[in-house]
Amino acid sequence: MVFVQIREAKEGDCGHIMRLIRVKSASPKPGSHRGSTSGWRGGEDLRADGFGENPFYHCLVAESLPGPGESQGPCVVGYGLYYFIYSTWKGRNVYLEDIYVKPEYQGQGIGSKIIKKVAEVALDKGCSQFRLSVLDWNKRAMDLYKALGAQDLTEAEGWHSFRFEGEVMRKLAGK
Amino acid sequence: MVFVQIREAKEGDCGHIMRLIRVKSASPKPGSHRGSTSGWRGGEDLRADGFGENPFYHCLVAESLPGPGESQGPCVVGYGLYYFIYSTWKGRNVYLEDIYVKPEYQGQGIGSKIIKKVAEVALDKGCSQFRLSVLDWNKRAMDLYKALGAQDLTEAEGWHSFRFEGEVMRKLAGK
Repeated sequence: MVFVQIREAKEGDCGHIMRLIRVKSASPKPGSHRGSTSGWRGGEDLRADGFGENPFYHCLVAESLPGPGESQGPCVVGYGLYYFIYSTWKGRNVYLEDIYVKPEYQGQGIGSKIIKKVAEVALDKGCSQFRLSVLDWNKRAMDLYKALGAQDLTEAEGWHSFRFEGEVMRKLAGK
Repeated sequence: MVFVQIREAKEGDCGHIMRLIRVKSASPKPGSHRGSTSGWRGGEDLRADGFGENPFYHCLVAESLPGPGESQGPCVVGYGLYYFIYSTWKGRNVYLEDIYVKPEYQGQGIGSKIIKKVAEVALDKGCSQFRLSVLDWNKRAMDLYKALGAQDLTEAEGWHSFRFEGEVMRKLAGK
């Protein structure tokens, strides 16, 4: 049995987190059309955007700790990247943008641990809602979120996500 | 013809913005189950959360300017509340949480002006995506966003929005 702790990411974790992001992205799933990274510089930006004065995001890491007598050090095996959002009706909320656990560590409740820690951080910061999005083919994730008590707002209320990007966005901005 | 300018909200606009939020909320639409405000203190929190050192949101206001010879001063007739979000694949993005234009000022392109200004701010901040959500009964808004070039990600890729809140969230956090 591996012991895994959930902790706040430090700047020095960015390389590990970026490697996990790449592993996750390298296994595309149906409907997950992520397109190009359009100039995003990965680890370098992850560091600057998450650990500056006004961070654009926050991150938790799941770290496996070596058992007694094991020579390997602690190892980042998952992450949950979140940020604070704001509702004109509820005030401060939190949004879990991305969550990932290495395949060989899945099925041990690490994802749930990350989600629970995000809820804890959210309450400590005075948030009243915790939102996230999931692709409809990802039944496993949908079932987990529902089992933990989340409501599918697209199903229940008809919320649709829209996105402007690339040339369309530049045209919109007149640039 | 009224001239309307879009500008960044100042702390002193919070009262006007809050009044518009209340007007908007007082006309519930199908599927828009906003529930209770769960302790959110409205204008007071809006001020503290948007104009502190690490603001939780940013806001644009649409301000009508008096014509020549008119005695009335400038007047806030709409708002667009947005914040910065973060993608593990695209980096910095922007999210337009809420947009509203007073009924008597609708149909004059003020909403589009707000959206365009958000796109401009987003590009200036190095964002590559501009996201928002809309309820499926709101055909007018959906048509506008599509006409401006946005893609419906729920339709195209199957993204569903999930939310934890209230007792469920506290239980999740073990509180």
